[in-house]
Amino acid sequence: MKKGCKFGTHRVIEPKGILPQPAQKISNDMEIFDNEILIDVQTLNIDSASFTQIKEQAGGDEAKIKEIMLDIVAKQGKHKNPVTGSGGMLIGTVAQIGDALVGKTDLKVGDKIATLVSLSLTPLVIEEILEIRINIDQVDIKGKAILFESGLYAKIPSDIPENLALSVLDVAGAPAQTAKLVKPGDKVLVIGGAGKSGMLCLYEAKKRAGVTGQVICLQHNDSAKDRVMNAGLADNFLVADATDAVEVLRKVEELTNGEMCDLVINCVNVPNTEMASILATKDDGMVYFFSMATSFTKAALGAEGVGKDVTMIVGNGYTKGHAEITLQIMRESAVLRKIYEELYA
Amino acid sequence: MKKGCKFGTHRVIEPKGILPQPAQKISNDMEIFDNEILIDVQTLNIDSASFTQIKEQAGGDEAKIKEIMLDIVAKQGKHKNPVTGSGGMLIGTVAQIGDALVGKTDLKVGDKIATLVSLSLTPLVIEEILEIRINIDQVDIKGKAILFESGLYAKIPSDIPENLALSVLDVAGAPAQTAKLVKPGDKVLVIGGAGKSGMLCLYEAKKRAGVTGQVICLQHNDSAKDRVMNAGLADNFLVADATDAVEVLRKVEELTNGEMCDLVINCVNVPNTEMASILATKDDGMVYFFSMATSFTKAALGAEGVGKDVTMIVGNGYTKGHAEITLQIMRESAVLRKIYEELYA
Ligand SMILES: NC(=O)c1ccc[n+]([C@@H]2O[C@H](COP(=O)([O-])OP(=O)(O)OC[C@H]3O[C@@H](n4cnc5c(N)ncnc54)[C@H](OP(=O)(O)O)[C@@H]3O)[C@@H](O)[C@H]2O)c1
Ligand SMILES: NC(=O)c1ccc[n+]([C@@H]2O[C@H](COP(=O)([O-])OP(=O)(O)OC[C@H]3O[C@@H](n4cnc5c(N)ncnc54)[C@H](OP(=O)(O)O)[C@@H]3O)[C@@H](O)[C@H]2O)c1
Repeated sequence: MKKGCKFGTHRVIEPKGILPQPAQKISNDMEIFDNEILIDVQTLNIDSASFTQIKEQAGGDEAKIKEIMLDIVAKQGKHKNPVTGSGGMLIGTVAQIGDALVGKTDLKVGDKIATLVSLSLTPLVIEEILEIRINIDQVDIKGKAILFESGLYAKIPSDIPENLALSVLDVAGAPAQTAKLVKPGDKVLVIGGAGKSGMLCLYEAKKRAGVTGQVICLQHNDSAKDRVMNAGLADNFLVADATDAVEVLRKVEELTNGEMCDLVINCVNVPNTEMASILATKDDGMVYFFSMATSFTKAALGAEGVGKDVTMIVGNGYTKGHAEITLQIMRESAVLRKIYEELYA
Repeated sequence: MKKGCKFGTHRVIEPKGILPQPAQKISNDMEIFDNEILIDVQTLNIDSASFTQIKEQAGGDEAKIKEIMLDIVAKQGKHKNPVTGSGGMLIGTVAQIGDALVGKTDLKVGDKIATLVSLSLTPLVIEEILEIRINIDQVDIKGKAILFESGLYAKIPSDIPENLALSVLDVAGAPAQTAKLVKPGDKVLVIGGAGKSGMLCLYEAKKRAGVTGQVICLQHNDSAKDRVMNAGLADNFLVADATDAVEVLRKVEELTNGEMCDLVINCVNVPNTEMASILATKDDGMVYFFSMATSFTKAALGAEGVGKDVTMIVGNGYTKGHAEITLQIMRESAVLRKIYEELYA
C-alpha cells in the first residue's frame, strides 16, 4: 500500500498542496493508502444548510436531487456543496483497514461507524442512490468512502438507535467541553439551554457543578420551561432575549446575588449574543462560544469595551472522547433520552 | 451627584436600554455622575481605519476634516465613525473624580492618562480642534471626555514618551496574555512575530519559556530576520506563508522534531491563517488568536476537520495589568525600546 499523509493531502488533486477540505477536487479512487480506512456507506446525513439548498435548486424533485448530488461527487470526489461550502456526516461499515493502522486503531472490519469529520473533505463514491428521506436530510446510498488517519469517527453502539446517535453526535463537542470546564460549586449559565446542544450542556453542568453549584437555563420564552425543569436539567429557568445584553446582565445579577457566572456556555443559533455572554460572566470567568453565529471581533472588542477580563473560547467541534461522553448521556438519563427521541430522532 | 451604571448605560439616549458602544447617541453633558471620571482631553488618537476614511471623505483638506469630526461628535455625543464603526483612544488629564470612586480608584486629579476603551463609547465634547497630525492619526483638541466606571485607562509614565506609550498600549493585550499562558519549557510559535504586537509577544515568550523552551518567529519573508534575531527575541526565525497551512505544518514539524508547539500566538493582519495556527499546535495545546482577521467558523470547523483537540482563545484586548506589563517591557529592554521608537513612535 502507498504511504499517505495523516491529513489526507495525498488525495488532493487541485489546487495542489492544500488540505482536502478547501480543495476543489480530491481523488476518490477507492484503493486505500496505508493509513486510510475504507467504509461501505449506508447513509449520508447531509448538512442541513446544504440539503436545503439542493432541495430548492431541484424544486423538490427527487430525480433532480439525485442528479445534483451525483454531479457534486463526480466533479469534486467528495460531497461539498459548492453553494454553501458545507458537507455533513455518514454512517457505514468498515470494509478495509490500511496496514499502517493495524494495531493502532480500535476499529475492525465489520464495525458500524459514524464519521465525525465533514463530508466536505471525505473521498466518496456514490454507485447508486437508494432512498432519500427528504424531511430529515438523510440519503441512503450504495457507495464507498475513505476516512483519513486524522479523521474522527464514533462506533455506533447497538443499544442506541442510529437516528438518535447521529442527532446527538452532531453536537457532541458541547457537552464534552462542558464536562471538562465545570468545577464543583460553579455557577453556570447556558444561553439557548433548551436547544439540542443546550440541554446536553445543562445535563453535564448539573452533574459537575453539584449541589453547591447553580445551573441556569436561559431561553427567550418559557415554552420549554416545563420540559427543562421537570427533567431536572437546571436550577433556574431564566426568560430573557440573549441579544439584549443589559436585560441579561440585570437578570443574571439578580439570580446570582450579584456574583455572576463562572462559566457561560453560548448555544444559541442567532447572531449578536456575544455581549450578553460576556456581561453575564464573572471577572476571571470563562465564556465558551459553541454557537457558529459568534463573531470573533464582536467578542474581542466587546470584552475590551466593558473592561472584562474573561477567557473566551472558540467552540472546537472536537475534544477527546466527545462521542463517548455524549452517547453515555443517552444511556444515563432516561428522561433526556425520551426528550431527544421525541424531538430529534 | 447622580448615581450611574458601571457600563455607562445611564448616558444612552437612543436606542434606550442598550450599551453605549452600539448606541446611536449618548449624552455628552459634562456634569459627571457619581461613578464617572472627567478628563481634560489633550490628544485624540483616531483609529487608523476611521481616520483614513475621514481623510478620504475630506479629500485631504484640513478644514473639512475638522468639520467632519465636529459633526460626528455633535450628532452622537462620541467619536464613532459612522462608516467604519470604529473609534480610537485619547490622552488627557484627570479633571474630576466622581464621589463613588473616591478611595476606589488609584487616579487623582492632575494625573495624565490614556483611555484604553474605544472612543466609540466615550462621551466627548470638542470645544476646538487645535492641530491635526495627519500622518499619525493624531488630533490635538481643547475638550472634555468621560470615563465610565468599567472604562480602562493607563497612567502615562513620565519615563516613556507619550507617542511610544500610545503605540504599545494599542496592542497591550497580546504580551500580557502571552505572559500568562507561557510556561517554562514551552515551545511557542508567534505567527507574524516581527510585527508590532508580535515582537512584544516574542519578548514575553522568551522570558517565560526560559532556556529549556523554544520560541519561533514566523514571517512570510526574511526582511525582519536580522532585527528579530539580533535583538534575541526568538530561537528560530521561520520563513513561511501563514495562509499555507501545509507549508507551516511541515516546517514547524522539522524545527520541533515533530513535537509541534504548546502555544501558537497568531499576530498577523491577514485572513485565512487559522489552519496553519491549528496544525502547528500539539494535541492538547493552545492557540491564542490576537489577530482581528480571525474567522470564528474557520477556526471551529478547521480544528474539527483535522481532529485536533486544541483550546482556541479569542484575543480579549484586555487582561488585568496589560498596560503595566507592556510599558514595563519598554523599560526592561533597551533594544526593543529602540526598535519601537524607530518603527512606531
Ligand atoms: N463545531 C461546533 O462548534 C458546532 C457543531 C454543531 C453545532 N454548532 C452550533 O451550535 C449552535 C446551537 O446548535 P443547536 O443544534 O443546539 O441549535 P438549537 O437546537 O436550534 O438551539 C438553539 C437554542 O437557542 C434558543 N434561542 C434562539 N434565539 C434566542 C435568543 N434570542 N435568546 C435566548 N435563546 C435563544 C432557541 O430557542 P427557540 O428554539 O425557542 O428559538 C434554542 O433553544 C448553532 O449555532 C450551531 O451552528 C456548533
Ligand atoms: N483587541 C485585540 O485583540 C487587538 C488589539 C489590537 C490589534 N489587534 C490585531 O492584532 C493584529 C496584529 O496587529 P499588529 O499591530 O501587530 O500588526 P502588524 O504590526 O502589521 O503585524 C502583522 C505581522 O504579520 C506579518 N504577516 C502578514 N502576512 C503574513 C503571512 N501571510 N505570513 C506570515 N506573516 C505575515 C506582517 O509581516 P509584514 O509586515 O512583512 O507584512 C507583520 O509582521 C491585527 O490583526 C490587529 O487587528 C487585536
